[in-house]
Amino acid sequence: MPVSSIIHIRQLNKYIDTQEQKVFVLCDSNSYKHCFHILQEHLPGSLIPIKVKTGESQKNLVTCTYIWEQLIKNKAQKDAVLINLGGGVISDIGGFSASTYKRGISYYNIPTTLLAMVDAAIGGKTGFNFGHLKNIIGIIQNPEKVVLHPGFLESLPERHIINGFAEMIKHALIDGQQQTNKILSVTNVRDYLTQTNIFENIRVKQKIVHRDLHEKDLRKILNLGHTIGHAIEYAALKNKKKILHGEAVAWGLIVMLRMSVAKLQFNQSKAEKIIDFIKKHYSKPAWLQLYRKDILAALIHDKKNTRLNINMVLLKDIGDARYNVVCTNDEIGKIWRSI
Amino acid sequence: MPVSSIIHIRQLNKYIDTQEQKVFVLCDSNSYKHCFHILQEHLPGSLIPIKVKTGESQKNLVTCTYIWEQLIKNKAQKDAVLINLGGGVISDIGGFSASTYKRGISYYNIPTTLLAMVDAAIGGKTGFNFGHLKNIIGIIQNPEKVVLHPGFLESLPERHIINGFAEMIKHALIDGQQQTNKILSVTNVRDYLTQTNIFENIRVKQKIVHRDLHEKDLRKILNLGHTIGHAIEYAALKNKKKILHGEAVAWGLIVMLRMSVAKLQFNQSKAEKIIDFIKKHYSKPAWLQLYRKDILAALIHDKKNTRLNINMVLLKDIGDARYNVVCTNDEIGKIWRSI
Repeated sequence: MPVSSIIHIRQLNKYIDTQEQKVFVLCDSNSYKHCFHILQEHLPGSLIPIKVKTGESQKNLVTCTYIWEQLIKNKAQKDAVLINLGGGVISDIGGFSASTYKRGISYYNIPTTLLAMVDAAIGGKTGFNFGHLKNIIGIIQNPEKVVLHPGFLESLPERHIINGFAEMIKHALIDGQQQTNKILSVTNVRDYLTQTNIFENIRVKQKIVHRDLHEKDLRKILNLGHTIGHAIEYAALKNKKKILHGEAVAWGLIVMLRMSVAKLQFNQSKAEKIIDFIKKHYSKPAWLQLYRKDILAALIHDKKNTRLNINMVLLKDIGDARYNVVCTNDEIGKIWRSI
Repeated sequence: MPVSSIIHIRQLNKYIDTQEQKVFVLCDSNSYKHCFHILQEHLPGSLIPIKVKTGESQKNLVTCTYIWEQLIKNKAQKDAVLINLGGGVISDIGGFSASTYKRGISYYNIPTTLLAMVDAAIGGKTGFNFGHLKNIIGIIQNPEKVVLHPGFLESLPERHIINGFAEMIKHALIDGQQQTNKILSVTNVRDYLTQTNIFENIRVKQKIVHRDLHEKDLRKILNLGHTIGHAIEYAALKNKKKILHGEAVAWGLIVMLRMSVAKLQFNQSKAEKIIDFIKKHYSKPAWLQLYRKDILAALIHDKKNTRLNINMVLLKDIGDARYNVVCTNDEIGKIWRSI
């Protein structure tokens, strides 16, 4: 399966025919309010909105069931199309619902946040949280197209810009010294978000996904910072604290960098320079040490782990990520106390 | 994705290592009672049974959720394996649960009924019924292997032998005159079920699935008799009548043959000869005319249909099936009154 090509929202009407196909648009209250009318301008004709509430807590089986019911109620056939207009929650749950309805109808991702543009909308990972476990249920199925409209970023709040930026830092670290240097010299994140820089960053992920869609090996490196990041999100959900995905990943990257120094002799001063940069943009959640036990317990359920060992992605050097580095809970606990 | 290869149950321990992998076995009360100990003989070591109730009514989201919960409770990781030991309900729901757990763990189908051996276990269709609609939610994902043990047929009740035989008739009609003649000369079905005949019949489906896994075109011909068959099953479910899948398909084949005569000039005396043969093995459900309205209404929800037309698979001749033959509800209704 090839990776989905990326098109601009202006081109969308070449691929979808609202006269011939039933077109559903999954949106949350935010994207319905701010983005639906822009989509409608570019895709005139009948669009059937499926509205869900905003937030990670909606990425569950109940929402998935609701989407299936709406498709059934509106007699969606095999040629129907679902457009996911929103952030990662929308593309994850919408992609899964579409890919499992009548054994799969086409879906399009139109990311409206920076995080979704550079990460969630790309690569075909779909699914939902279940039993407090993040993304435990899902499949990999590429969207028909990823549709970009950088204009959506203009109205995006500052916290959500910083949220998406964490994945851009991750991509740069995976890609190499050049993109990393560019990132480390950023003082105003918004200024960095030119179309050229966003596309350069997305290409890091596209290249990897193209070579290993099903995450048999190489794609695992995209989990850089995510083993810990997901565990932080799990602990936040469990203890009713609010943290955005990118914020959790940023702190996951910090732990990863210290682990890389300890386990793979990653250059310590390089690591500390990057850590300083991350800490400047991402303040430490007050509860991070408090829920250490929950976080360590969650690691064992991470999808990358086989049986008892915790497999982490670490850096041997910038641009040289290694996956399946076996770490123990104790080693992670020790690093944890140092951050 | 290649089609799954078929192995004998004796070979299973070459592929699954109960020392190294967590091995789950999905079974219903019947297969647990009659077949689990035979599997255990061929696969010594720790097997974790996941038991569900028997019957089509269990092929729903609640059962799927239960399987996910059992996998989570037992800390199944990415290298875990799910063996589906049972009929089509078990392989459909188990295949879906496994393929969506942690974005997919391996699964094996061990069909214990004739219907499952010649049809459900082959071809990677997984899923469940939802909102009274058959197989409306699902994906296509091939099992790692299909594992045959013809010995299971010995204890299978007569009605379930006849049930599976309907799919064998269908395969023969798709394949050609030679296999069809062999089938039409059958007087005792059990005598026909030699390993050679079963394998010859499975190969018809294997060849087609290999060429078109995702049912973009050719695979549609495997739906011969199923457009009407599924609608009959829907009406039975809705009205709390009991009909087996193969029994519904047999009557679907009868309607299909009459339609083929009307729409594609299929030879009438050939058709009547096959219809007589089918009627000899499949008695007509007393309620079949009574729920005609429900059956016709269900047709519009069949997965093969786009918008308002009903696409049927009909025969131009034996061995020459045509898909996407557009039929109207009226045409089907007219044929319906003739059966």
